[in-house]
Amino acid sequence: MKPTAEFDAWVRSEVDAVEAALQAWVPEDAPAGLGIAMRYGVLDGGKRLRPLLVLAAAQAVHGHAEAAMRAAVAVELIHAYSLVHDDMPCMDNDVLRRGKPTVHVQFGEAQAMLAGDAMQALAFEVLTPFADEMSAAGGPSGVPPALQASVLMGAACGEVSAAQWSALADYGDALGLAFQVVDDILDVTQASSTLGKTAGKDLDNNKPTYVTVLGLDAARRHANELRDKAQSALARSGLVDAAWLSLLADRVVERDS
Amino acid sequence: MKPTAEFDAWVRSEVDAVEAALQAWVPEDAPAGLGIAMRYGVLDGGKRLRPLLVLAAAQAVHGHAEAAMRAAVAVELIHAYSLVHDDMPCMDNDVLRRGKPTVHVQFGEAQAMLAGDAMQALAFEVLTPFADEMSAAGGPSGVPPALQASVLMGAACGEVSAAQWSALADYGDALGLAFQVVDDILDVTQASSTLGKTAGKDLDNNKPTYVTVLGLDAARRHANELRDKAQSALARSGLVDAAWLSLLADRVVERDS
Repeated sequence: MKPTAEFDAWVRSEVDAVEAALQAWVPEDAPAGLGIAMRYGVLDGGKRLRPLLVLAAAQAVHGHAEAAMRAAVAVELIHAYSLVHDDMPCMDNDVLRRGKPTVHVQFGEAQAMLAGDAMQALAFEVLTPFADEMSAAGGPSGVPPALQASVLMGAACGEVSAAQWSALADYGDALGLAFQVVDDILDVTQASSTLGKTAGKDLDNNKPTYVTVLGLDAARRHANELRDKAQSALARSGLVDAAWLSLLADRVVERDS
Repeated sequence: MKPTAEFDAWVRSEVDAVEAALQAWVPEDAPAGLGIAMRYGVLDGGKRLRPLLVLAAAQAVHGHAEAAMRAAVAVELIHAYSLVHDDMPCMDNDVLRRGKPTVHVQFGEAQAMLAGDAMQALAFEVLTPFADEMSAAGGPSGVPPALQASVLMGAACGEVSAAQWSALADYGDALGLAFQVVDDILDVTQASSTLGKTAGKDLDNNKPTYVTVLGLDAARRHANELRDKAQSALARSGLVDAAWLSLLADRVVERDS
């Protein structure tokens, strides 16, 4: 039997930790007055599925906890920045995201573009735990911030064999596809109010999706097959602590927003 | 006497090497069809002053040549991406850059935004010499690319004392200001055809500049003072190979575009 209650408690605790880390890493007084727009774009929204996957993977390979949290924050910053830019008028021209006006609607296009740029840069800075110390020691101001990330990522990855990498990569590939299939399903089955973003956009744009190509029922079966494939990859990985990764795969497919 | 001919030969050789490295790092078949726009935004233009400063600094501290070139390419990619985004209609709305239509005029706003985003990401990837090997070994596809940059940056920096860092930082700060002062001077004294970008924009926008605040003659004196300050910092740095850094400071102030 799957330890669902324990998993739910882990999810809540880790989501809270991710929120706290994002709050700390994206200060209101960020340079160039972009802090407010950056916080608007990344805080208090989203299911934090990507950070949860990073944290569960780090746990599965016995990675270092602080390193894993930095990687989780970086992944979410990259995700959030890509949404800010994708929503802009020259791209998808979306006005609603996570139930709020999109960043460019709220702050203007220039602020949205610059805030997205700064979020990408911050993601790499988060991966550089020793940049501050180096700067304090009188390092040159022009050095790019991507310093010493190797130590960090090595710590986050822990000790993993090539076969385990391969199984984790298969897990990630299958789950990524499942995520997209479910996105396509939700676009036609859910209201904008549940999704927190504009529903039905794919249909309006005549965009081919898993639902328009396969039909709704076959798309649902395909999502389940991809989840099974992801979980099979975990089963043959030999990782002892892969339970949370497996339950996250269920969560990705069963979500309603 | 300053070895100007030798310096000019060094500049030509290093600019060629930077161009070749950028050509190699920004392939036409870059993902998502952005390669052409990225190459348009970063190749065959610009004076490459920032890469030259990185390479001269690495030489002054006896840094590792390949590491220095990667840092030089990364700095230029960051510079070029910031120009692509700054030129967009929601920002400065510039139509001319380096004597060519700006990226969004040539390829559209969506391509310009995404190409800029990809250039920033590529800058960090360039700083990760072992990412390819890790990927070939079956590393997970979702790991951020900012891997092992510490080894690289450490190699580029070589052995530098705290006092030398401090002097180099002073040099960089003074030269950065001098660069801006000269930009302001050129905006009012040069034609668009010489600058390769729209001249007179600062005046048209009623933007306060060193020229509008100080006047043209005082701005020129100020640029020379800042160059002297940068060169004084080098003189007290104790670096044995700072000749190219000193001559680059002359070049920054004497340029006409």
